[in-house]
Amino acid sequence: MNWKNEISAAADRIAGYAQVTPVMESRVPGYPIELKLEHMQHTGSFKARGAFNTLLSMDVPEAGVVAASGGNHGAAAAYAAQTLGYPAKIFVPELAGPSKIALIEQTGADLSVVSGEYANALTAAQDHATQTGAMQIHAYDAPGTVAGQGTCFAEWEAQGLQADTVLVAVGGGGLIAGALAWLQGARKVVAVEPETSCALNAALQAGEPVDVPVSGIAANALGARRIGSICFGLAQGMTSVLVSDAAIADAQKRLWQAHRILVEPAGAAALAALISGAYKPAPGEKVAVLVCGGNISPDPLMG
Amino acid sequence: MNWKNEISAAADRIAGYAQVTPVMESRVPGYPIELKLEHMQHTGSFKARGAFNTLLSMDVPEAGVVAASGGNHGAAAAYAAQTLGYPAKIFVPELAGPSKIALIEQTGADLSVVSGEYANALTAAQDHATQTGAMQIHAYDAPGTVAGQGTCFAEWEAQGLQADTVLVAVGGGGLIAGALAWLQGARKVVAVEPETSCALNAALQAGEPVDVPVSGIAANALGARRIGSICFGLAQGMTSVLVSDAAIADAQKRLWQAHRILVEPAGAAALAALISGAYKPAPGEKVAVLVCGGNISPDPLMG
Repeated sequence: MNWKNEISAAADRIAGYAQVTPVMESRVPGYPIELKLEHMQHTGSFKARGAFNTLLSMDVPEAGVVAASGGNHGAAAAYAAQTLGYPAKIFVPELAGPSKIALIEQTGADLSVVSGEYANALTAAQDHATQTGAMQIHAYDAPGTVAGQGTCFAEWEAQGLQADTVLVAVGGGGLIAGALAWLQGARKVVAVEPETSCALNAALQAGEPVDVPVSGIAANALGARRIGSICFGLAQGMTSVLVSDAAIADAQKRLWQAHRILVEPAGAAALAALISGAYKPAPGEKVAVLVCGGNISPDPLMG
Repeated sequence: MNWKNEISAAADRIAGYAQVTPVMESRVPGYPIELKLEHMQHTGSFKARGAFNTLLSMDVPEAGVVAASGGNHGAAAAYAAQTLGYPAKIFVPELAGPSKIALIEQTGADLSVVSGEYANALTAAQDHATQTGAMQIHAYDAPGTVAGQGTCFAEWEAQGLQADTVLVAVGGGGLIAGALAWLQGARKVVAVEPETSCALNAALQAGEPVDVPVSGIAANALGARRIGSICFGLAQGMTSVLVSDAAIADAQKRLWQAHRILVEPAGAAALAALISGAYKPAPGEKVAVLVCGGNISPDPLMG
């Protein structure tokens, strides 16, 4: 697959549907870095890019679309379906939490909350697709999803990205696959995962995707049990670091205090790698951090 | 006074001290507008610009600096003083609220909370300046403050501002004076005030600054009893509109829902004029909104 072409085509496709998200400089880690505020994307995360790209590039059946999600992808798929006039069925695990569940309900999508973790919602979505003929929008392991997420990095370069190195939080790997697909060769991409849900790190160590236990404060966004195969294929040899829940919570608080950027834990995870020193830039190395998700719980205003 | 020169000099002076704040496109009113996210400025409002400009352009006495404030200016003055190594004494009214009071306390400034409204804090600050020789940083009615706030609009133009018309919330008038000083002649500036604290609107109607009653959800940021004389001098013939508290609260909610931008009521007031129709752009008129303050109470994370 020629990823650069796929991502360029996706960017053309979703223009006007996805939000162009702002960029800024920050000194939160104690030295200057670039931030892209992708948590300001429609429905509060980058997931809207992949959802719009998928729906705009496929023939959607009469049964509509179905998605399984920790919450953010479900909200994005439901919003994209609503915008484009398709029925949507969304499965989320209980741990999605009230903010994300409310966000999905507001789109008018048919929502089912299933017990357990994300993997259970995925099984339910696959069953639904088989039974009804609805088109599944995979949260991370589909080319249309990865190409959509990759538009975030194409957009960032067009906005003047200077960094040598870009840090990206990883759950199932759709976003970082998009980052690698667009940036690889030109800039270093660093994967950041919570210590308590590190499917990519475990896969890189094992030499193949393996199941991992999933817990912690970012689990409803980054808690994939197994890394996506597309991501794993692109991630060979990449730098992968882990951060504690305490480091994530600290980064979350510092984004708010310094910039009035209020994000969910997953949205602060990549920055946490710099603040905590899990990733230490070399002298002169310019770094950038993608702020990927803003659906904090409890929601401070929605209701 | 050659305001363009003053603002250009201020911009050079505060470079590296003030945050360059991001800009973005939004469709929240139902049509495309430009936003500048000045609530991401250090201490959560544009006030840091005027405070840094004042301290960097004056000889600060040994007694340090003193400021009266509804909260945001006090936090900015205290932060600028801390950054530059000066002692600071800040007076705020009770209605500043716990978020802004905590923000000031974190800088190590000497804080006094006085009863009543902003005007009472101003009297106390003036007394303190007289007694101690401390330099007063006026919240809005001083040339150094106005020139500092004006850098926000110079920066916005350098970032590619397209709009014919820029909407700005007004309290004592420092920010809109800066907007008028930089933009007048080139773009239309529209003043937006709450119905319940409208010192500029009342002054324009009376033909001179007059005292107004002050209340409502944005009073701790926009609740000046009388418009500043610098602002009044620049504001002759300008467009002035009023918004209700309900319209402000709605705009605040919609900024959060659409963009995960969480601001205090004052920060949403200018946008409220578009959503509510208090200001209706002419066909083809391109409009921009300054998002000016983010110190929401209760603070969702700080503690």
